[in-house]
Amino acid sequence: MKYFAKIEYVGTEFSGFQIQPDRRTVQGELLSALEQAFGAPCRIMGCSRTDRGVHAKEFCLTIDTDGASIPPKKLPVAVARYLPPDLSLYYASACREDFHARHDVVSKEYVYRIWNAPVIAPFEYHRAWIIYPTISDEAIARMQAAAPHFVGKKDFASCMAQGSEVTSTVRTVQSLTVERNGREILVRIRADGFLYNMVRIIVGTLIEVAFGRMDADEIPDILEAKSRSLAGMTAPPDGLYLNRVDYEKDPDPSIN
Amino acid sequence: MKYFAKIEYVGTEFSGFQIQPDRRTVQGELLSALEQAFGAPCRIMGCSRTDRGVHAKEFCLTIDTDGASIPPKKLPVAVARYLPPDLSLYYASACREDFHARHDVVSKEYVYRIWNAPVIAPFEYHRAWIIYPTISDEAIARMQAAAPHFVGKKDFASCMAQGSEVTSTVRTVQSLTVERNGREILVRIRADGFLYNMVRIIVGTLIEVAFGRMDADEIPDILEAKSRSLAGMTAPPDGLYLNRVDYEKDPDPSIN
Repeated sequence: MKYFAKIEYVGTEFSGFQIQPDRRTVQGELLSALEQAFGAPCRIMGCSRTDRGVHAKEFCLTIDTDGASIPPKKLPVAVARYLPPDLSLYYASACREDFHARHDVVSKEYVYRIWNAPVIAPFEYHRAWIIYPTISDEAIARMQAAAPHFVGKKDFASCMAQGSEVTSTVRTVQSLTVERNGREILVRIRADGFLYNMVRIIVGTLIEVAFGRMDADEIPDILEAKSRSLAGMTAPPDGLYLNRVDYEKDPDPSIN
Repeated sequence: MKYFAKIEYVGTEFSGFQIQPDRRTVQGELLSALEQAFGAPCRIMGCSRTDRGVHAKEFCLTIDTDGASIPPKKLPVAVARYLPPDLSLYYASACREDFHARHDVVSKEYVYRIWNAPVIAPFEYHRAWIIYPTISDEAIARMQAAAPHFVGKKDFASCMAQGSEVTSTVRTVQSLTVERNGREILVRIRADGFLYNMVRIIVGTLIEVAFGRMDADEIPDILEAKSRSLAGMTAPPDGLYLNRVDYEKDPDPSIN
């Protein structure tokens, strides 16, 4: 049987999503829990990879198993007893056979949390990028002025970690917003796909603009140059959350 | 010189506030950081003790040191480099010599966070009491009906962990409220002082009332009996936050 499922996890103690030998990964922990719940081998296909330390509030995947079937609505509770406390499977449905968790993604939304603290922020450790120098309202306005330069169908080669191999570096960013709520600054970005480290490099570039080390007007040239070295630093993984994944059609065959 | 200071900490990795040999405690980590910052011995007096796993958003204390003085306003940044990431000293001022961080407390407020989740709640692990059975609106109403029975000057012997030694078990609870925000249920309690485990036993009792295992109307008899065995379970430390400490006069001699 094939299932569609949604999971959330705190990324801090995982070496990313993708299964690797001798590393604690989300896929590895989930696979082990599913195989215990089903008492049979399972296969998992995720909507994307997330890096070491990156969090997910909504990560979508499919599960294939030849094992004794568990009704989809009961899967979250059935698997919960085998999962560690930093990983939850909170939704499951039946899934059409021709649905692909990665290829069928229409858009994904990431949220990047920045915490502007005067000293150590204990409750935000590993949950945000903690930045100590004051980010003024003017700095926020500069980030907001820079954001639209990243929106649209563009070549994002300048915002991709070096050494990545992809057939195309063109992606369509549908929206990019910056908002402040007290000490928290939220960067929200939605696109049809993301290159390796793309969100973290865009956020790092926005912070360079905030502190006046880059100018918003330089961004079109930076993208045009297709050179990683011109964009800003790579923001740390701690603030990055996969927040939402959209598909054209619901994977559940009973829903149209 | 004597300082007044406020700290916050995530309690999960600490064996409580009070210094103990061979244990990681808040007081131990703070003392070590202060002595490195001052380059001289320091003495710390806290506003209370908190247990293993209990958090603080505002914990007040005084620091005495014979060492080279650091201007109070500069103390948070001076000590930050020696503190671990789960402990922050975020405010400091000068302090009058006759001020006592514990004896001079007029009231303290604790917040207890309950998270009502259908399955594992990764982002709330160790940050709340995660309760899986549904807490209905009717259950919340029962908790709210029970709360006023704990308010006033009363003998709280029934809400004190066994084995505690105190001269009096009478305390004045100034307010106790229960509110729900989505999956989060907040219990907020303010009193002139608290017995050992008092907040956690009151919250445990409110949860017994929520699930219909105790009745709100029984609470006056439970308190009257002065017997720990009649009150509800002790809620886990993970949801408990010291939230606010009030003094009659500001400890800073320049403020009246």
